[in-house]
Amino acid sequence: MKFNICAAKPEDCKDIARMIMELAVYEKMPDQVKISYKELEKDGFGPNPFYQCLVAEVPEEHKSKDGHTKVGYALFFYTYSTWKGRTVYMEDLYVMPEYRGKGMGKALMATVAKVAKEQHCVRLQFSVLDWNKPSLDFYLSKGAEDLTAKEGWHFLRFHGIALDNLAQEAP
Amino acid sequence: MKFNICAAKPEDCKDIARMIMELAVYEKMPDQVKISYKELEKDGFGPNPFYQCLVAEVPEEHKSKDGHTKVGYALFFYTYSTWKGRTVYMEDLYVMPEYRGKGMGKALMATVAKVAKEQHCVRLQFSVLDWNKPSLDFYLSKGAEDLTAKEGWHFLRFHGIALDNLAQEAP
Repeated sequence: MKFNICAAKPEDCKDIARMIMELAVYEKMPDQVKISYKELEKDGFGPNPFYQCLVAEVPEEHKSKDGHTKVGYALFFYTYSTWKGRTVYMEDLYVMPEYRGKGMGKALMATVAKVAKEQHCVRLQFSVLDWNKPSLDFYLSKGAEDLTAKEGWHFLRFHGIALDNLAQEAP
Repeated sequence: MKFNICAAKPEDCKDIARMIMELAVYEKMPDQVKISYKELEKDGFGPNPFYQCLVAEVPEEHKSKDGHTKVGYALFFYTYSTWKGRTVYMEDLYVMPEYRGKGMGKALMATVAKVAKEQHCVRLQFSVLDWNKPSLDFYLSKGAEDLTAKEGWHFLRFHGIALDNLAQEAP
């Protein structure tokens, strides 16, 4: 199936917001999504964008059952390693179920890697749920290292009241 | 002991580079550090800084055995959640061994949290090695959630040849 990978435009934010929710449903945490397409527009397309996004698009004749032509996305941003310098973190990689197995996920991820290399980033990093074996196996088969399994890195978070309390302890 | 938490200045980069190496030694991966203070200067203090840094400083009369007054740092940057919007990631938090137990680590981390709140970020995230029990217990005692233990998130990375190969698969 023919498809294109393009840099997202502001008018893609409704599609991106829809797919963010579809991904959260797959990850069994749909009640966690608090973002709107308006915020995505503001945060991704101002003078200092907080993220970059790629969209996978199919021609009109291959549109989805619900009439969508934007059928996948990869959202990423620049991060920094104090050991290596500039790095990229891929927050989301998603392809709608009816378009899986056609190389779109690989094409999106490879394009993120290409952008990373162009920007002199030496790492592409991301997180995967341990029960999501198909994704984990896919990434490992492409040469990704599982740093949690290999080196024991755990991912921690302050949010809500804990973040408020911590901020109040600042001198 | 009296100490101050200040935003890092370009002239602090030699001290920051020294402490990055000290932290890598503690994490048992000193051979991984490829960064120089020159890169830290360029990447942190240009028009589009890739990171922010706080430094803990003691007065001259409390300088370290080796003569240092910059004795801790927290390095962080802005990230993005497709569920919640703006977030902060703390890449490093470090206090020199002879200054531990004096509240400097907490003061550095709390100041990062304060900056995060001021910038309307709803999460402060970071990674910890699972064998580093003192740090893990400290963070958990302050209300951090261990997302790897709780939800099963694993941290993955493409780098080196695997990243090159992936980038070459871009359509």
